[in-house]
Amino acid sequence: MKPDTLGVIGLGALGGSVAWQASRAGVKRVVGYSPVPRENVAAVRAGAVTEIAADIERVVELAELVVLAVPPLATVELLDRVASVIVDRPGYCTDVADVKGSVVERATALKLDRHFAGSHPFVNSCHSGFSAARPDLLAGKLVYVTPLSGGEVAAAEVADFWRRVIGAEPVILDAEVHDATLAWTSHLPQAIASALTATLARHGPKGVTYGDGALTATRPAIGNAGMWTEILLMNKAEILSALDAVVSETRRLVADIEAEDAERLREWFESGCSWRRRLEVVGMTGTRRARQ
Amino acid sequence: MKPDTLGVIGLGALGGSVAWQASRAGVKRVVGYSPVPRENVAAVRAGAVTEIAADIERVVELAELVVLAVPPLATVELLDRVASVIVDRPGYCTDVADVKGSVVERATALKLDRHFAGSHPFVNSCHSGFSAARPDLLAGKLVYVTPLSGGEVAAAEVADFWRRVIGAEPVILDAEVHDATLAWTSHLPQAIASALTATLARHGPKGVTYGDGALTATRPAIGNAGMWTEILLMNKAEILSALDAVVSETRRLVADIEAEDAERLREWFESGCSWRRRLEVVGMTGTRRARQ
Repeated sequence: MKPDTLGVIGLGALGGSVAWQASRAGVKRVVGYSPVPRENVAAVRAGAVTEIAADIERVVELAELVVLAVPPLATVELLDRVASVIVDRPGYCTDVADVKGSVVERATALKLDRHFAGSHPFVNSCHSGFSAARPDLLAGKLVYVTPLSGGEVAAAEVADFWRRVIGAEPVILDAEVHDATLAWTSHLPQAIASALTATLARHGPKGVTYGDGALTATRPAIGNAGMWTEILLMNKAEILSALDAVVSETRRLVADIEAEDAERLREWFESGCSWRRRLEVVGMTGTRRARQ
Repeated sequence: MKPDTLGVIGLGALGGSVAWQASRAGVKRVVGYSPVPRENVAAVRAGAVTEIAADIERVVELAELVVLAVPPLATVELLDRVASVIVDRPGYCTDVADVKGSVVERATALKLDRHFAGSHPFVNSCHSGFSAARPDLLAGKLVYVTPLSGGEVAAAEVADFWRRVIGAEPVILDAEVHDATLAWTSHLPQAIASALTATLARHGPKGVTYGDGALTATRPAIGNAGMWTEILLMNKAEILSALDAVVSETRRLVADIEAEDAERLREWFESGCSWRRRLEVVGMTGTRRARQ
């Protein structure tokens, strides 16, 4: 769908970018709302929104499609307020949270199947706030769309919005499969990069120079602490099982070092290197970043 | 020292760069030797060396300073052949291996204290071969120089070579301290990035898109498998203790997720993020990459 009126709740990097691109793509009215006054001002000044609503309910009343662009836990909480307005109307709603199971579950409990489909634009979330928004942030980027049971029409409309208005690449996926997949493709790498960083901060020598490998492996630790906390807790079971797998892998490495098994170690490094190189090759040639 | 004749054994990325920069800096004779014929040809064609010697002993006979630019284990083995020629002469020798304890130990056993000091140029070793050599590879880069007991003169000459001829920044450091430091600043991040990569390769879903965080955290896994195997085995005790610390840190993370302790998790992410940001800031302003 290409709505005449789009509502965006939360005008940070993601919400701000969605609003801005929609304005550019000719959506007539883009109604924004942020609880942070300066984000509202910045979004109006940039021309990302055509107006700011007084509250969240007003956005839902006005818009044919509402995008909730707030952190994961807040997304689940907001659904109640959205539902109270949207159930009697023909409008649609989606979100941008990194975790989809609990969002879809709450929307299902609120009987939003004719109105709601979850979304997760798969972009780097390292910078936050409207100052990190830009109209092309999502251009060509993968967006997972997770339907509610019986919510295929809403999911198709939401996916069409991402493609036609935002220029992203929607992929419709079951919410549980999404969370199980993201545990490996995003959440585990973040958790391990942060665990490595915490270890270096706690035990590493002081006043020394860190190498390129250390700088790279720890770079993801620069991120939104609050958001990652919510993601880890909202995808708890999948994350715990993935963390368990890394601990086992590390124990295997320790055993091979203790046994001084050079051949096994070399094969281990080689197979990791070759797997990682394939990721890069696909990332260079495909429209999506990196598949394996 | 600025030698009239420099010998470089091994003409890969590091050896090739050292030879090439020495030629540019006006060292009259740069005698190279590689067991790989095409590396010899490439080095001569590029003007990185003035001649190729028939064997290793000949390089040592000719040169006032010999740089062993071969993998760590081969470095230790080569010291015997270097010693058999150098002990009766006034020449100096150094190396470029990432691990220094066993190199210095072997050189000490060979009574090379008047001739040898270890070196470790702290540069990214992701690309290999003469095709990755360039004269400025080491310009401004940190080079650890590790003296033998009683080898202060040799260490000072070697350090002076790195600074005056190569334009690097030598720092003289005890070999044991070097290995204990590098376990954290280089070897552990490599091992953990590879363990994360191996876990994703083994357990991760197939045919899916990996995020920016995953791409970054696993990037160090693209590396020289043989060299990293030698490094892990030659710095075994320090690496094992560092790996143990990451496993403990990961267990703490698991416990906090299991307890759903959002406050502790948020503080944990925040303190890692702030430690990592400081690394970046120093990296941007200092001549060396990143200190903490």
